[in-house]
Amino acid sequence: MTYCLGMLCRAGAVFLSDSRTSAGMDNITMCSKMRVYEKPGDRVLCILSSGNLSLTQATIALIDEELHLGKQDPGREQLMNRQTLYETVRYIGSKVREVEKRDREALEADGFDFNIHLIVGGQIAGFPPEVHLVYPQGNSIHATRDCPFLQIGERKYGKPILDRGFTYETGLADAVKVGIISIDSTMTSNVAVGPPIDILCYEADSLQARLRAHLDDDDPYLQTISQRWQDGIVKLVNEMPAPDFSKPALGFATAA
Amino acid sequence: MTYCLGMLCRAGAVFLSDSRTSAGMDNITMCSKMRVYEKPGDRVLCILSSGNLSLTQATIALIDEELHLGKQDPGREQLMNRQTLYETVRYIGSKVREVEKRDREALEADGFDFNIHLIVGGQIAGFPPEVHLVYPQGNSIHATRDCPFLQIGERKYGKPILDRGFTYETGLADAVKVGIISIDSTMTSNVAVGPPIDILCYEADSLQARLRAHLDDDDPYLQTISQRWQDGIVKLVNEMPAPDFSKPALGFATAA
Repeated sequence: MTYCLGMLCRAGAVFLSDSRTSAGMDNITMCSKMRVYEKPGDRVLCILSSGNLSLTQATIALIDEELHLGKQDPGREQLMNRQTLYETVRYIGSKVREVEKRDREALEADGFDFNIHLIVGGQIAGFPPEVHLVYPQGNSIHATRDCPFLQIGERKYGKPILDRGFTYETGLADAVKVGIISIDSTMTSNVAVGPPIDILCYEADSLQARLRAHLDDDDPYLQTISQRWQDGIVKLVNEMPAPDFSKPALGFATAA
Repeated sequence: MTYCLGMLCRAGAVFLSDSRTSAGMDNITMCSKMRVYEKPGDRVLCILSSGNLSLTQATIALIDEELHLGKQDPGREQLMNRQTLYETVRYIGSKVREVEKRDREALEADGFDFNIHLIVGGQIAGFPPEVHLVYPQGNSIHATRDCPFLQIGERKYGKPILDRGFTYETGLADAVKVGIISIDSTMTSNVAVGPPIDILCYEADSLQARLRAHLDDDDPYLQTISQRWQDGIVKLVNEMPAPDFSKPALGFATAA
């Protein structure tokens, strides 16, 4: 499994991903799920991937292949010359569909799902930052002010902190902290998600991927956030008022 | 869906359940998932249920039926005369298997899973408090000091707070608060889990179900816990140190 998160806010966008891949309990390895593509002053794109590793790698391979071929042939359609982020996302969706044509039948014949999800975000000059989610069918949705984050992979453990701690108006530094807590909570509760954590903190209109981090398990900052969260929530619980059992519990009766 | 939680600690055991049932988006109703059986001075049993409502109700109906018949026939095997909690749990498992024999084939013929999970806990005089989980196959596991809580239903959202905020040494009042936060977090993130919340806080060796509550959506205590949690975690995030992006992110390279 995997957990990746794209967060859209007024000040920019934050992308986080774990690095664990597993193909059975005895085959757990590390693989970054984050790809950053940058043409400073023109555009920054970030792709996060979850699902079957061979499918996400196949999709990225097709994208990178055309990017490379496009250097000899500037008219060629490729990742970094689409006019808008939505067109970029549709282009990526078309690569997912190519992989689907190649591999789905063979996978399903042996009982594997065609499972790939991507988060694609960033900014193209002249447009605001955006964060999208691409489905296995190649179609997509995008984050909005009301629904400012998108998750792929093992997403349930890390959702409560986002629902309560993150809005479109959250500043970038706090967004990064909430994102780290969301991933760290998931790692604590589920062994299929693990470090290092890759982070891209994209500042709106900067058009460069300047703020990036790669936090290993023993990274002092990650440990600080994790420990302060642990201590903080225990203290929060301690300080809350005790439950009141003096009212009769009308909702249910005692049997027997 | 549903979310139920059984917590075992040195001071006793805490049981919590939501009350939402849904059979499709247009058929959402309320139904308590908690049953409490009490014979003061002898035993207290609590059963929490998740899964297909007809299956959980069928199982409880079989249990209650024998309990009733046992009043005329004291030698009859029934829920409240088993020698140990483990035997009680095996008895309940045998009722799940009876329902399985009756209903599984018909359900699966129309594509419904045979889906029922139960948490069963409490105390019988002469033994310590215990918390068990019964699977659809009728077998069971139980909580231990190292693994002191068991969840059924929509369990992922509410697990991180338990992993960090609850141990076997947590006091009963704090256990109740952590349990409420676990359910409240789940309700916030998933519409398939909803109020009222039923609570049984069982004090070890009391052998009576004295501390019970039934918290509706607008219950002032539930609202206080929910709001303090919301405000508290936002403050916690604010007070954490800002991320440091000054180190090079060695883990990944920029493409294009």
